[in-house]
Amino acid sequence: MRAAINLAKLGAGFTNPNPLVGAVIVRDGRIIGEGWHERYGGLHAERNALAHCMEDPAGADMYVTLEPCCHYGKQPPCTEAVIGAGIKRLFVGSYDPNPLVSGKSLGMLREHGIEVIERVLKNECDALNEIFFHYITTRMPYIIMKTAVTIDGRIATRTGDTKWITGAVSREHTHMTRKRAAAIMVGVNTVIADDPMLNCRVEDPSNPIRIVCDSHIRIPLESRIMRTAREIPVIIAAAEAEPERIEAVKAMGADVILTGGSRVDIAALMRELGKRGIDSVIVEGGAELNASVLNSVRVNKLQVYIAPKLIGGEGAKPCVGGGGAAYLRDAYMFCDPKVTRLGDDILIEYRQASGGGESDCSQG
Amino acid sequence: MRAAINLAKLGAGFTNPNPLVGAVIVRDGRIIGEGWHERYGGLHAERNALAHCMEDPAGADMYVTLEPCCHYGKQPPCTEAVIGAGIKRLFVGSYDPNPLVSGKSLGMLREHGIEVIERVLKNECDALNEIFFHYITTRMPYIIMKTAVTIDGRIATRTGDTKWITGAVSREHTHMTRKRAAAIMVGVNTVIADDPMLNCRVEDPSNPIRIVCDSHIRIPLESRIMRTAREIPVIIAAAEAEPERIEAVKAMGADVILTGGSRVDIAALMRELGKRGIDSVIVEGGAELNASVLNSVRVNKLQVYIAPKLIGGEGAKPCVGGGGAAYLRDAYMFCDPKVTRLGDDILIEYRQASGGGESDCSQG
Repeated sequence: MRAAINLAKLGAGFTNPNPLVGAVIVRDGRIIGEGWHERYGGLHAERNALAHCMEDPAGADMYVTLEPCCHYGKQPPCTEAVIGAGIKRLFVGSYDPNPLVSGKSLGMLREHGIEVIERVLKNECDALNEIFFHYITTRMPYIIMKTAVTIDGRIATRTGDTKWITGAVSREHTHMTRKRAAAIMVGVNTVIADDPMLNCRVEDPSNPIRIVCDSHIRIPLESRIMRTAREIPVIIAAAEAEPERIEAVKAMGADVILTGGSRVDIAALMRELGKRGIDSVIVEGGAELNASVLNSVRVNKLQVYIAPKLIGGEGAKPCVGGGGAAYLRDAYMFCDPKVTRLGDDILIEYRQASGGGESDCSQG
Repeated sequence: MRAAINLAKLGAGFTNPNPLVGAVIVRDGRIIGEGWHERYGGLHAERNALAHCMEDPAGADMYVTLEPCCHYGKQPPCTEAVIGAGIKRLFVGSYDPNPLVSGKSLGMLREHGIEVIERVLKNECDALNEIFFHYITTRMPYIIMKTAVTIDGRIATRTGDTKWITGAVSREHTHMTRKRAAAIMVGVNTVIADDPMLNCRVEDPSNPIRIVCDSHIRIPLESRIMRTAREIPVIIAAAEAEPERIEAVKAMGADVILTGGSRVDIAALMRELGKRGIDSVIVEGGAELNASVLNSVRVNKLQVYIAPKLIGGEGAKPCVGGGGAAYLRDAYMFCDPKVTRLGDDILIEYRQASGGGESDCSQG
């Protein structure tokens, strides 16, 4: 199953909003076929593994990270392929996240005489598809808030110096997250100040859609994001804007989502992104965008890259703006910290806890 | 040697400014004697192990975490005891940190026919005595700066709410550090705001000397620290103060160190504390004391307890005050992060890097 998990990861960045899935076919302790879900709309992992079998899979075992599908989507059901190939035993990691069909395939396969072993390395298999499981059950994007801070929680000095807070290893790590996610979001002030590309700079890149929160469409048309809007998609998320501003960015290839109101309605925006098939958004906010997002929706993953530096003082830019909690009981609460060392930087990844004083973090 | 290291730790909090040392005597794979340096002025580990031997140690092996002493101090040299007992082989972890005598004992023991094996678990043995090694070579206290912050680096909300930033596991952990250190330092504003005891609340406690940085001796005489000054020592570190204020705190049992100037001279204060045999100081500052210390001396260990909370906003209290670095190249730099998970809190321990843009962190 570990081999199947590693195969599944090869699809990262290319299958959204489909899951990452890997499959391995084994006979007599030898791997005779391997496959993974390579890209959205392409063959599923099971069919890829069968197609690449070096010998007849009849009577062999199959390991697959996710319960095979039993319905017609972009591809015919994988259960048929597994049955047709004469697989004898099937080892399955995750269940189908759709409660209406979860486990249904496994029953069908058993009816056809296949021995099914469930929950094999289930936690590891589930971890492959946090994004997919969230999206398929809520139709809302999985929200990753990423921030790079000093030990004292600052993203810039009082003079606006931001290059670089974190080290090279951390910055490379963020590009792996960009590869995996469907979209990346910044505020228009970041575009004005830094003129970033927000692309994915790794080998075999997959660029996320770039979303700029820009209540009244102030984005400079000469910014790098606008100038490359035909190569890498851009969505301008606005509250309301003058028609000529809307037309100007559309003429350059950007899409526009209007939420109404005086500022972008983050919750409405996220619902609209979900409707458009965007299963995941990295929020790389400045202080104000981060505060707006935290005030509007639940963050699924908070990624904090901590650099081994202290700026000190009151004037440096905090990672989260807004009014700030008056009392600790009003603070945004997180749980399940996971730590990764990246050079002398430390990455802590949290899950946001439920609000209302009640925590859902008991499983940590 | 692992047994000897664990024995050494039993002296934590009681041997300052002497090192932690453990010794084990072994014959035919059986431990026949164990000892550790139990308290300042008491028997050294080697002599304790020999004294507690269950059979004649002649011909046996000894494991000791630190090179035995060969000079007369509060105790006669341990080399004599090792030779006199007829130890056949000696396994040693750390070298004596004094460059004039480092390794000298080992040569003497070899001249007496004892086989000496050096550097056994040296890193682990060295780690026992970071404080001692620093103090004995510099005569300056080993400075531990401890701060408990939210993810955004705040130690209090804008209304001053501080209870509690971190969870119970972290708070207990800080008391283990208090047990080990010779002294703990706060600013007078912390005493006025929180009226803390600053004692060590663990089993078998060893209370650090309490130092209050209080430039003009404003400490309330009715504070808990002052009222308990005869039970747990208190030092008021002032710049200059009126004679009647000095007399008032002295009359209650506190000691006073005057550094001159308009504010406490932290570097001069640390030198004076070193002269008084204080080998280690925990700085549990508010923002201003932390900034003063960082501006004056090198911090040997920065302990940052990070709670899984975001306060947000500009008004919450930062962990380090002062003017703040204008550019990232001027920030205080740290290295060698070590991470400990404490419930949902994360403790990161750093070493401060050398100043002047040049880093001494290559060993990390």
